[in-house]
Amino acid sequence: MANKRIALVLSGCGVFDGSEIYEAVLAILALTRKGHTIEFFAPDIPQAHVFNHLEGKEASGEQRNVLVEAARLARGNIKPLQDAKPEELDGAVFPGGFGAAKNLSTFAFDGPDAKVDGQVKEFIRAMYGARKPLAFFCIAPVVAARVLGPEGVEVTIGSNEQVATAIEAMGARHVTKKVEEAHVDNARRVCTTPAYMYDASILDVEKGINACIEAFSKLLSAPP
Amino acid sequence: MANKRIALVLSGCGVFDGSEIYEAVLAILALTRKGHTIEFFAPDIPQAHVFNHLEGKEASGEQRNVLVEAARLARGNIKPLQDAKPEELDGAVFPGGFGAAKNLSTFAFDGPDAKVDGQVKEFIRAMYGARKPLAFFCIAPVVAARVLGPEGVEVTIGSNEQVATAIEAMGARHVTKKVEEAHVDNARRVCTTPAYMYDASILDVEKGINACIEAFSKLLSAPP
Repeated sequence: MANKRIALVLSGCGVFDGSEIYEAVLAILALTRKGHTIEFFAPDIPQAHVFNHLEGKEASGEQRNVLVEAARLARGNIKPLQDAKPEELDGAVFPGGFGAAKNLSTFAFDGPDAKVDGQVKEFIRAMYGARKPLAFFCIAPVVAARVLGPEGVEVTIGSNEQVATAIEAMGARHVTKKVEEAHVDNARRVCTTPAYMYDASILDVEKGINACIEAFSKLLSAPP
Repeated sequence: MANKRIALVLSGCGVFDGSEIYEAVLAILALTRKGHTIEFFAPDIPQAHVFNHLEGKEASGEQRNVLVEAARLARGNIKPLQDAKPEELDGAVFPGGFGAAKNLSTFAFDGPDAKVDGQVKEFIRAMYGARKPLAFFCIAPVVAARVLGPEGVEVTIGSNEQVATAIEAMGARHVTKKVEEAHVDNARRVCTTPAYMYDASILDVEKGINACIEAFSKLLSAPP
């Protein structure tokens, strides 16, 4: 059913130190086409680092805030994640980009020993506990794996063996999928798609994200 | 015809001090669906300022580079505009966002007396002189008006009277259009669409951008 309230949880703005921009916009398009209302959130924390996307290296000495940069992707209309009220939301979507593995969690640095930001962990647990559907793209499923691994959550990040092994080490189950596919864990109400974990055309990434949001929307309408 | 080489000319990353992100991604989607190859460019110049998109005000004391920030929208795959070779390109697209009016030109500060960045002006003149089609979204048509006003170029920025008046003061002709429409100046091979000059749904902005890229693609295939 249309017109659900969906949290889009961002991690900055830019593939190498924040949210992957194309994935975030494709999520916005797919959710809006389904008739859902989007509420943007990001944790109000410093970025792990700033990455110079032109030179392909860390911009040493620079510091940016995850929420302030994520506001670029929300045209200013965003709130700190600590203000999110799970009881007023029907589901949540986490685009990928290294921000999920550097800011929302420390997976890029610590692998399966990653720490997940406290607010992010609390938010995911609250939504999961209330049987609200969750969707994760690209590398963001590692956050789901770290928080919901003990629940045996099933996710896909495509076919990257190293990341898949780390996901299983966190107690989750990894399912190999193509870029244009999504994996749906119906029991735990978690949808995932590989997106830019593959070096793919934006049109194939769009197919995968649309498939993921399609499945996510079905879960939103299904009895909990 | 498919597989033309199209320059996507960016002005940063974020609606209030750079390229409008949704417009840029919708352009990428529309051009890719048409089978075109995109080459990303931005001028290697300092941003006019940095805007805190969360607080809605200038971030005083911060400085960023237009090319470096635009690289976020290109996933790193971008070149300085001075390296663009008009003879190797078939057309060019300019998304909107305040970056077009603050970085590519000074329209946000100087109105019809705006200066256009020298490389941007040179690039537009070279493409125009070679009869290569050009497309501009949102506020970016003011750049077309400033450079091609003496040619009597026709553009739309929607229905904003103040900007329309400024456009006419620069010698161009303004045509009122709805958000889902595009205006095509067939004689000068320039396509424009209002996009976020309206407070519109992303789905209506998408319709306008798709209409603009459809017309732009027809011009790419038409005899010069």
